[in-house]
Amino acid sequence: MDFFELIKRRRSIRKYKPDRVPAEVLEKIYEAIRLAPSAGNLQAYEVFLVEDRERLGQLAEAALGQDFLRQASAALVFCAAPRQAGREYGRRGETLYALQDATIACTYAHLAAAALGLGSVWIGAFDDEAVWQVIGAPKGLKPVAVLPVGYPAENPPPTPRRNWKDFVHPV
Amino acid sequence: MDFFELIKRRRSIRKYKPDRVPAEVLEKIYEAIRLAPSAGNLQAYEVFLVEDRERLGQLAEAALGQDFLRQASAALVFCAAPRQAGREYGRRGETLYALQDATIACTYAHLAAAALGLGSVWIGAFDDEAVWQVIGAPKGLKPVAVLPVGYPAENPPPTPRRNWKDFVHPV
Repeated sequence: MDFFELIKRRRSIRKYKPDRVPAEVLEKIYEAIRLAPSAGNLQAYEVFLVEDRERLGQLAEAALGQDFLRQASAALVFCAAPRQAGREYGRRGETLYALQDATIACTYAHLAAAALGLGSVWIGAFDDEAVWQVIGAPKGLKPVAVLPVGYPAENPPPTPRRNWKDFVHPV
Repeated sequence: MDFFELIKRRRSIRKYKPDRVPAEVLEKIYEAIRLAPSAGNLQAYEVFLVEDRERLGQLAEAALGQDFLRQASAALVFCAAPRQAGREYGRRGETLYALQDATIACTYAHLAAAALGLGSVWIGAFDDEAVWQVIGAPKGLKPVAVLPVGYPAENPPPTPRRNWKDFVHPV
């Protein structure tokens, strides 16, 4: 699907059909993530795949009770790898680039999911430590986004936005 | 262009033709930014448009001498608006969501530019304070990315990436 059409049609989907998303479809999302740009091409992020029902439930709790996570076929947890970016770029790498790398990677996954006809929604509200424990991530990784994916069982209307004249400032 | 084709073809472009990018084309980028998701739909970012030659030169200096910025038709400076996200979400809004909102917005702009046949490259290495002064941003806004755009005058090969099996971890 054309990029501009894709971003116009994308919605935040919080209801999913019970059907599982096949591994081959998830792999298309991973291939999209791969192509995301990163600072100095260091790819300072890691992605954790949660498909187990019990763990999805624990993720829902870690995400402050966002219970629709339990119904997702899978959830991808995007972690920044501050040490990875910090080795090359010091404090700016640790505090800015790693976080941006993981955020751009999640944006690519989010768009890829929509392009594949999947529903997903960006989850940012969670207890970092609790998410980190659910995925069993190595020390030093910082979860920055959770992206549940599944076949959509709702079709919400678009949400409002500012006019671009309200956020673009010619200088 | 199809999303997967688009991300496969996108390159970091640091050489630009002298032709100016018309306002109508830039507006298509702004419309893409508009559609970027944000935490609680607060859109905690602002975008500054720099087209003036002298200011582009100042930006190049603020970006630690990345002189190709001088040749770009325009540069978009993405700022996080921490107070905007902080009002609703406190410290997490200030330190995480605003930065992510601005980063996702820049990712959409970056992809839109590629879809429109423009060249661009994500610039993260700069002196925050110097960039902030060049754009004359209000107090409290934090520049997190600079995106020059122009018609591409180079066609670099793809850069290498990890295999997805190296960054996707099933748990």
